Amino acid sequence: MNDYSVFCVSDHTGVTVEAVAKSILAQFPRLECSLITLPFIDSPDKATSAAARIASTSRALIFSSLTDPGLRVPFRNAGLSLFDIFELISPAVGASLGEAAIPSGGRTHGMAHNYEARMDAVNFSLNLDDGLNPGRLDQADLVLVGVSRVGKTPSALYLALQYGLRVANYPLTPDDLSHTALPGVLLGHLPRLRALTLSPERLAAIRQARYPDSRYASLEQCREELIAAESLYRRHDLPVLDTTRMSVEEIAARLRSLSSG
Amino acid sequence: MNDYSVFCVSDHTGVTVEAVAKSILAQFPRLECSLITLPFIDSPDKATSAAARIASTSRALIFSSLTDPGLRVPFRNAGLSLFDIFELISPAVGASLGEAAIPSGGRTHGMAHNYEARMDAVNFSLNLDDGLNPGRLDQADLVLVGVSRVGKTPSALYLALQYGLRVANYPLTPDDLSHTALPGVLLGHLPRLRALTLSPERLAAIRQARYPDSRYASLEQCREELIAAESLYRRHDLPVLDTTRMSVEEIAARLRSLSSG
Repeated sequence: MNDYSVFCVSDHTGVTVEAVAKSILAQFPRLECSLITLPFIDSPDKATSAAARIASTSRALIFSSLTDPGLRVPFRNAGLSLFDIFELISPAVGASLGEAAIPSGGRTHGMAHNYEARMDAVNFSLNLDDGLNPGRLDQADLVLVGVSRVGKTPSALYLALQYGLRVANYPLTPDDLSHTALPGVLLGHLPRLRALTLSPERLAAIRQARYPDSRYASLEQCREELIAAESLYRRHDLPVLDTTRMSVEEIAARLRSLSSG
Repeated sequence: MNDYSVFCVSDHTGVTVEAVAKSILAQFPRLECSLITLPFIDSPDKATSAAARIASTSRALIFSSLTDPGLRVPFRNAGLSLFDIFELISPAVGASLGEAAIPSGGRTHGMAHNYEARMDAVNFSLNLDDGLNPGRLDQADLVLVGVSRVGKTPSALYLALQYGLRVANYPLTPDDLSHTALPGVLLGHLPRLRALTLSPERLAAIRQARYPDSRYASLEQCREELIAAESLYRRHDLPVLDTTRMSVEEIAARLRSLSSG
């Protein structure tokens, strides 16, 4: 099948419509396509020039999230068809609720809520990154533990940015791993600890990319650290997540459901 | 209108369907609702117990992203109606392409791509946070500049996590602001600089939350710093983003479009 250019047109950031387009396109595996996002198309002028740009592309698909139906008109006038999230979903919801959707052009949609709580959470997670400021662990919603390069920091930051959770992370060093119990500073916070682990092969590959041919990055060292860490997790009955084949979004969502379980 | 419980049911993280639900619900402003996300509903057993849980709720709406149509059956068998992203959008896309969607139960959908590039970008952004390691600025995709607490760090991290961009950030201190040109270390990177600014009132409120009643957090000090900073931005003709009323998603999307413009 020939290549398509897939445009994601939004009156806001385009993050949501881009995620929807990727999900839907995964169901058409024969399609080869490149994705172009056109955010902040929030006036008739911008819609008209976006439509002109897309119309000059030979094989185009358009996904859109345009709250104002009027902004979809220039695309259709240019002979383009678009799959608009609001147009395709809102009528079904309205029928179920027994009232019509009110296009809310000016209203922010998407994930823009709780800005300050989320920024506070990011700052908290940075301040308690990598074992810093352990005296503030009692203020954390979650404390991620694991060996070096297991993915604690990105997971903590994603949980903070996406969900507004205050997430500390604490590294288990080879010294910590030589003991039979977790470091004393963590013992007062056991219910909030979440352990991350990985396959030794994956951990070695991640460490190799940073410190090639080091003892630190050797498969043997990675295996020893992970075995010792997992024994500590069992000792304290911590919830453990094996992140070997997971994206950061998936790690965060799983940690969050562990936490509410 | 009475309260509804809105459930977002996904066979993966639920991030996408949650964003879609929030967008759609914004078009029904009279609706009072609470949002509950049920992620990783990826087997008939999990779908059946999720359906039982939801059926016990008095007024429920369900948004879903369930790639396997079979997983939607337990909900409908329980008399529940659900608005499924795939069900509502894929047929229109398939008709346009002239082929049917193939439900891809096992395939990851959503924003799970380029995991390693994104993690590298997060590490880069942390290593070049707040003016650290200026010798590596030439490796950055973007360099955010601005006064203290203007939102540089969360914006840089979000750009890294969401888009895989390597984003440094550099604080303009009162000392920097007393000069008529940007710090020398930035001058070799002007095309990649992006300036952030805020209203003085908003900046003062953010600083007050952290250091109440300090000179640093006073409206006068904030105003002086912002005026001096904006004069430097004009001097070097930097693209400037006023983030006063923006979410971190919006800041990131706007910085990204500035960068490609």
